[in-house]
Amino acid sequence: MAISTHRHTVTTRGQGDIHDVTGAVSSAVAASELTSGVVTLFVVGSTAALTTIEFEPGAVADFNRLFEEIAPRDAEYDHHQRWGDDNGSSHVRASLLGPSLTIPFVDEALSLGTWQQVVLVEFDTRGRKRDIVIQVIGE
Amino acid sequence: MAISTHRHTVTTRGQGDIHDVTGAVSSAVAASELTSGVVTLFVVGSTAALTTIEFEPGAVADFNRLFEEIAPRDAEYDHHQRWGDDNGSSHVRASLLGPSLTIPFVDEALSLGTWQQVVLVEFDTRGRKRDIVIQVIGE
Amino acid sequence: MAISTHRHTVTTRGQGDIHDVTGAVSSAVAASELTSGVVTLFVVGSTAALTTIEFEPGAVADFNRLFEEIAPRDAEYDHHQRWGDDNGSSHVRASLLGPSLTIPFVDEALSLGTWQQVVLVEFDTRGRKRDIVIQVIGE
Repeated sequence: MAISTHRHTVTTRGQGDIHDVTGAVSSAVAASELTSGVVTLFVVGSTAALTTIEFEPGAVADFNRLFEEIAPRDAEYDHHQRWGDDNGSSHVRASLLGPSLTIPFVDEALSLGTWQQVVLVEFDTRGRKRDIVIQVIGE
Repeated sequence: MAISTHRHTVTTRGQGDIHDVTGAVSSAVAASELTSGVVTLFVVGSTAALTTIEFEPGAVADFNRLFEEIAPRDAEYDHHQRWGDDNGSSHVRASLLGPSLTIPFVDEALSLGTWQQVVLVEFDTRGRKRDIVIQVIGE
Repeated sequence: MAISTHRHTVTTRGQGDIHDVTGAVSSAVAASELTSGVVTLFVVGSTAALTTIEFEPGAVADFNRLFEEIAPRDAEYDHHQRWGDDNGSSHVRASLLGPSLTIPFVDEALSLGTWQQVVLVEFDTRGRKRDIVIQVIGE
């Protein structure tokens, strides 16, 4: 059993920008030289999140539309009053989706479906530099 | 410290079909012969998800109604245009709920509440054969 | 590689009561004397959940408002018919947000952002005593 720590940085364009980071996760597992285990991803910050999706423009647009309906960007948020910010929608969306994801790997391969990609979801209203910590644990 | 890999397959009936898989998770932990650790579950594919719920018909129906309200099956989805599919609602629901769940076990027992079951949620519009990868890590 | 098991109990006041438990998670990592790894949190029970948020009153109020909009407390729930309970909204909210969270730590520090706190979200309609199991795995 061993641990291998990796970090992946993504520059985003702001709310609705979704990045496929599957390659970075696969690379971390390969670099760990471990055969079987789990990889935990965590995005640092309170206005971004991680999930899996079929990474094609239609599903990505649908996913963003869902969040716009349940937490509209232009609604009123108490968070705005506090900081003069405009990203109240970003905070509640990110907390709902969540910052972490844990994916098994077996025989050196991630247990993902063919049409299932790991994505970083930028919810902030402006572009950000995002750090994802990738912790590979296995044997 | 050791890892023990298991796989559990469930045949589903399509959107709204929710299966209690707690028994399979408990069996994997028992088969691992580990005393303390975490078990990571991951459902392969982009139109199903995992969570915990009090597994009784009322809560299950309520849970499905919530998803039908925020991502109605018969709404228009960009994903439909791309593939001629009818499962745009399935993709966004699954991405929102998420494919993975990590549960501690202590003294060989899962840290679940009495009324808290681990469930596979089928979001696709048709029945599927679902693979859940169960990775047990502990000592 | 080693495992260190901790438990943290929080007394809550009922639906909408959100507690910052970052200190308890940091303490568990420190007590484990491990340098690098992951910490898995799991809240026992089917009407509470875990996530991260910028823990300030505005964002917390916004977060509760989002859940009240998608799963109103006073709506009709099938779960109520079964048990005579009033917490149907609690169950669906908790299942949507999820009971577990896994956070990496590196050089003995949690990989959290400055404005990103770990929170227990009480969704039940009455106050509860909540147990969070904290499993630290690393080296």
